[in-house]
Amino acid sequence: VTTVPVDERGAVVDALGDEAAVLLTPAHQVPMGVVLDPARRRQAIRWAAGTGAIVLEDDYDGEFRYDRQAVGAMQSLAPDQVVYAGTVSKSLAPGLRLGWLVLPAALVDGVVDVKGSAGAHSSAVDQLTLAELIESGAYDRQIRRARLVYRRRRDRLVEMLARYSPAVEVSGIAAGLHVVAHLPGREEDDVAALAARHGLAVQGLGANTHPGHEHPPALVIGYATPPDHAYTAALARLDAVLAALS
Amino acid sequence: VTTVPVDERGAVVDALGDEAAVLLTPAHQVPMGVVLDPARRRQAIRWAAGTGAIVLEDDYDGEFRYDRQAVGAMQSLAPDQVVYAGTVSKSLAPGLRLGWLVLPAALVDGVVDVKGSAGAHSSAVDQLTLAELIESGAYDRQIRRARLVYRRRRDRLVEMLARYSPAVEVSGIAAGLHVVAHLPGREEDDVAALAARHGLAVQGLGANTHPGHEHPPALVIGYATPPDHAYTAALARLDAVLAALS
Repeated sequence: VTTVPVDERGAVVDALGDEAAVLLTPAHQVPMGVVLDPARRRQAIRWAAGTGAIVLEDDYDGEFRYDRQAVGAMQSLAPDQVVYAGTVSKSLAPGLRLGWLVLPAALVDGVVDVKGSAGAHSSAVDQLTLAELIESGAYDRQIRRARLVYRRRRDRLVEMLARYSPAVEVSGIAAGLHVVAHLPGREEDDVAALAARHGLAVQGLGANTHPGHEHPPALVIGYATPPDHAYTAALARLDAVLAALS
Repeated sequence: VTTVPVDERGAVVDALGDEAAVLLTPAHQVPMGVVLDPARRRQAIRWAAGTGAIVLEDDYDGEFRYDRQAVGAMQSLAPDQVVYAGTVSKSLAPGLRLGWLVLPAALVDGVVDVKGSAGAHSSAVDQLTLAELIESGAYDRQIRRARLVYRRRRDRLVEMLARYSPAVEVSGIAAGLHVVAHLPGREEDDVAALAARHGLAVQGLGANTHPGHEHPPALVIGYATPPDHAYTAALARLDAVLAALS
């Protein structure tokens, strides 16, 4: 596995060469939270079409764009070059172990074989339940409800940081289930350790980047947990951690 | 993969040599329907203990013994030599993809690794639901209810064969979800094909034995399907097929 740099326009796809595939999170880059720029999308597809490579479009939290309509999937631009991967892990629950792939026709049989030999263990009951949720419209309602909940959580977190910790800058678009909070001049692991002592499980940015890559000191703060009744207390703890630093 | 002969006392474990493992169905041999004799059980365990091999005890329909209390699992006799495999595929539904292994302690970490690398795709929701069924006693009630239903189905099938097709002998113990019906002097594949034309999916014994092995002509008749309201009609069709032969 090699790596591709990421800037404010997403993955720097210029860097692609003779790789067989590239894994992208175009809707919301992990962990930096930027959107893959339209020109970069076209460039990645041209690269794949020219070299026979595959673009793996991991749309793991693509349902959760808060500031505007989500950008369409790359897969629809180039169905023969792009494998689209979606999941209910963020919209319903990761424990369901359900997702889906939209595949170039030539890959379908091979992927079905691999899935079968890995046990084909997806529960039929859960799949049928999901199909009914989708057909009845209940899944769409759940997405809209979850989007509102997570948007409010993100807004509260970002507002708190802006008000009480103005030195901590949040990067990335208003989307997904985490923010990257920059800590100029701090050791992110020390801050994460202090947060852990306050009962908060947050990670340094380094835990989300390829080993050896340079990155600015930052925390990756997921706001999908804890449950609603505990979220205000969690924010207060985070505020206490950041106040202790200044 | 090599094979072990089967006689009326189950797998002929004398035949085991330097194999790394043997797969047995001690409670109800597939497809012949015999129980593994106590002396053979002890012999297989001695073989495994002496050579360092593993006995894989597949107890896939061990809940369904109709004529008496089921024999205990081999695993309890030799927990360091036997891997016990159970499943809800027969007691609840195969589509749940849930089962369990009881493993020698030394194998646990390796099996967990392999399961994890194969996707770890068992639904947490289904596992929690099963745990609640077990803890509440509802799973035991389901087993008892299913045992009664399947026992009645088997009894009706066996009685019909004895009354109207006395030349067709049923072998194996009163257990499980299938019978082996012997068809002396017949081509089993022709009978299975005739049954298919009558809308019955039954297999010849050859479809359930290792390629190249000699076996007497017989049908393997599963009675867990069709649903209750269609079972009488299915029996009548089978009777018509067998009557057409005589």
